[in-house]
Amino acid sequence: MSNPEPIPVGPWRRRSRRTVYANPWLTLWHDEVDRPDGNPGIYGVVHFEGRAVGVVAVGDDDRILLVGQHRYALDAYSWEIPEGAVGPDEAMEAGARRELSEETGYEADAWRFLFRFSTSNSVTDETGEMYLATGLRPGEAHPDATEDLALRWATLDEVLAEIERGDIHDLMTVAAIGRYALGARAG
Amino acid sequence: MSNPEPIPVGPWRRRSRRTVYANPWLTLWHDEVDRPDGNPGIYGVVHFEGRAVGVVAVGDDDRILLVGQHRYALDAYSWEIPEGAVGPDEAMEAGARRELSEETGYEADAWRFLFRFSTSNSVTDETGEMYLATGLRPGEAHPDATEDLALRWATLDEVLAEIERGDIHDLMTVAAIGRYALGARAG
Repeated sequence: MSNPEPIPVGPWRRRSRRTVYANPWLTLWHDEVDRPDGNPGIYGVVHFEGRAVGVVAVGDDDRILLVGQHRYALDAYSWEIPEGAVGPDEAMEAGARRELSEETGYEADAWRFLFRFSTSNSVTDETGEMYLATGLRPGEAHPDATEDLALRWATLDEVLAEIERGDIHDLMTVAAIGRYALGARAG
Repeated sequence: MSNPEPIPVGPWRRRSRRTVYANPWLTLWHDEVDRPDGNPGIYGVVHFEGRAVGVVAVGDDDRILLVGQHRYALDAYSWEIPEGAVGPDEAMEAGARRELSEETGYEADAWRFLFRFSTSNSVTDETGEMYLATGLRPGEAHPDATEDLALRWATLDEVLAEIERGDIHDLMTVAAIGRYALGARAG
């Protein structure tokens, strides 16, 4: 059997890729590589099937809508902005609208793209986008069966203080609230 | 064979755990679970062997030190603050000092903890801490063999503009720079 030509990945070379595991949310690849220094190595890559989306949802009284849930992977409770995964057949803003509605019941009249991101790029290829939603109208939440969610409203100062204390630690939330606070304080 | 008692994980129950894959950086567990609604399900958990650390390194002229590299998992070039992984036997601030020195050569006279975070808590248990380093003194970089790094200095406004354009997308960097900018603009 001949060795196929290695595939360039920036200064790396991928010599082989084996799918170790796959479920509906992620696939794990074990790659044999040449590292940037030319020596052989391995790379375990966690491929995400969906893209992440987050929503800073701000009410007419300027309070921010937070979702609380026990994160299974982390085994810890986490208060976060509404977040979810967007499949390949859905546009990102549509996914943001759907996640906000599913998790909180709220619809929003105004949507603004904030920034794009890669969440944990040492071993995953997960990317995502952040949105700002205003002009909120309440409705009925319909979380999916893996979600046991609580909701609350907090002022920007309260959220910033919880980040400072480490009570809010979800990185998408920290990044989104920082970006929103910079805009809000610039006026 | 008797079924062991399921282990509570918040409103979830873990019925079994199988190690699918392990390398020096991560382990993948496939869990059989009862979901919060009581129905059976699965969960693929990516366990990180290290904790993440990031450093906002600010020079005496207020410019910020950025590290550029091709991220293998993402297959994209990424300009970021200095970041790395801290093993179980190393304190977080010591890890931050080591990563800054290894990747950039710089030592810092003053270190400040900024915030703790969880990077991608839908499927990983990766946590980390962010630091601010000032009083920088140049030295010799010694990146490890998996790293092919470029360095540059950028003003805060330049970094914020690159985040806005999506040129900088690493979520640790977005979150850290947002936090730093809020502090810097508050004086």
